[in-house]
Amino acid sequence: MVFLFLCDAERGAVFARAFAEHLPDVRFSMDAGSVDPGEVRYIMTWKPPEDLARYPNLEAVFCIGAGVDQFANVSLPSRVKLIRMVDDGITRMVVEYVVMAVLSLHRNLHVYIHQQRQRAWREINPQPQPADRRVSVLGLGVLGAAAAAKLQGFGFKLSGWSRTKRALDGMVCFSGADGLRDMLAATDILVCLLPLTPETTGILNAELFSTLPEGASLVHAGRGRQLISDALITALDRGHLSGAFLDVVDPEPLPPAHPLWTHPKVVLTPHIAAITQPGSAAMTTIENLKLLKAGRDPVGLVGRADLHRH
Amino acid sequence: MVFLFLCDAERGAVFARAFAEHLPDVRFSMDAGSVDPGEVRYIMTWKPPEDLARYPNLEAVFCIGAGVDQFANVSLPSRVKLIRMVDDGITRMVVEYVVMAVLSLHRNLHVYIHQQRQRAWREINPQPQPADRRVSVLGLGVLGAAAAAKLQGFGFKLSGWSRTKRALDGMVCFSGADGLRDMLAATDILVCLLPLTPETTGILNAELFSTLPEGASLVHAGRGRQLISDALITALDRGHLSGAFLDVVDPEPLPPAHPLWTHPKVVLTPHIAAITQPGSAAMTTIENLKLLKAGRDPVGLVGRADLHRH
Repeated sequence: MVFLFLCDAERGAVFARAFAEHLPDVRFSMDAGSVDPGEVRYIMTWKPPEDLARYPNLEAVFCIGAGVDQFANVSLPSRVKLIRMVDDGITRMVVEYVVMAVLSLHRNLHVYIHQQRQRAWREINPQPQPADRRVSVLGLGVLGAAAAAKLQGFGFKLSGWSRTKRALDGMVCFSGADGLRDMLAATDILVCLLPLTPETTGILNAELFSTLPEGASLVHAGRGRQLISDALITALDRGHLSGAFLDVVDPEPLPPAHPLWTHPKVVLTPHIAAITQPGSAAMTTIENLKLLKAGRDPVGLVGRADLHRH
Repeated sequence: MVFLFLCDAERGAVFARAFAEHLPDVRFSMDAGSVDPGEVRYIMTWKPPEDLARYPNLEAVFCIGAGVDQFANVSLPSRVKLIRMVDDGITRMVVEYVVMAVLSLHRNLHVYIHQQRQRAWREINPQPQPADRRVSVLGLGVLGAAAAAKLQGFGFKLSGWSRTKRALDGMVCFSGADGLRDMLAATDILVCLLPLTPETTGILNAELFSTLPEGASLVHAGRGRQLISDALITALDRGHLSGAFLDVVDPEPLPPAHPLWTHPKVVLTPHIAAITQPGSAAMTTIENLKLLKAGRDPVGLVGRADLHRH
């Protein structure tokens, strides 16, 4: 019984140690060429391997990231489960990033960064109170709910939107197309944590930006293909939006000539909001393998309906 | 009985409304020339007025800010109380700023800002966990204690230092010169929230920086004269320190030719960590006036010993 690890060797070394300690009966390999394909029951990967058909006894594909949109056009045999990474480390990192970005937009850090380049010592006044800042989160899964809960602790006015209606403490929850419009019209700082699906591709577009009130700003830590960057730049240049913190763009890496690099109202980070931490991810994977072997559903199992939505 | 308000008219208008509603028996004035000096019992100001001797019946000077170091060389008659602003709004803003700055240094935002200017899409790896980040706070008064408590919620390893020994939940507290050295040697991110006194003037100097471990970083939201900026620049240039978030410098505004403006490892904000919010500050002041009239100590009363320490 082989667990084939097809990601980077650095994280692989951490996984190998954890498997040796906690699952000695599973053979852990990072070298597809050295194992009998018929022995491979599990594969951990980021992108779908092109040669899945080589593994007749494959039972599950573990994605090392939280998002599985890269599997949208991959046909997996029905016996093969797809499992995305639901890891405390990822959740914690996304919450850190979102709080950092929302506080930065709230306190005008992006403006002060620009002023620093111009050597301008100028206080921005008045500074709104958090109780007057309406922060809205797109996507209320594990990540969105955790980020919203942490932001509440700073006194922001929280709303959230999800495809299917959710109920979360201390915040107004919206769903559906009408709900989205209603929420956007009452949003000062919009945080996108949506998964990439056909419905969310290009969702951050000119129409959405025009629905936001003047002076609103954006934190984007979802997926790059959700953002129409030309529309964002136009909204920023017209002054309709006041700033953006972007962790994801399309394509990645962003080409050097792209105008987002130098836009004075944009802070850009290279898709680092969440980096799967090998230690906790290895333990999460091992717990999931134990669930699978016991015939139970693993944490992060992607439903067939959800997969087809991708 | 006159309350003379010597700060900006914008905040004065908010104070005037609050006084009219809550303290109608006190005459609120923003015009020193139009009131009988003998009637003035209270003055609110940022800098000490030069003509304090004009007011024979003055009972208290309210400073509109949290720091009163600007009163260090002012001799107040013993009957005149000095009261600094202890306001929930200030505390909340300082906590926001410190959390924003610590998360930014923790997540390498200052490096990504610099990379953005170079159009470099490069992830910094490995990303330490908060449990492995030792964050230390200099100054454990109302502001330092509140900032430390909020940072604990992100999982950082907290320490704190104060002149006199404090005991705070969930963190190791140090005091004295030996305690300072011990704490600095085990600090990854140092947060300065000290008041300005003769002992803290120039405390952020070459010796202090050399006591920090290699790769440490600094958040400075105390007072500008506590920082020897040449020493900071040297420590950053040598790579001993990895970054700095500065809200206060000396002098302010920072002259355009100063090298801190353009240092690639420095994020500079124009003394905006705390801006006294007129609404909550007016109510805090009104509550303090009621305490004074009842013969009780107001909140934020600066002791004579503390004042002489300035």
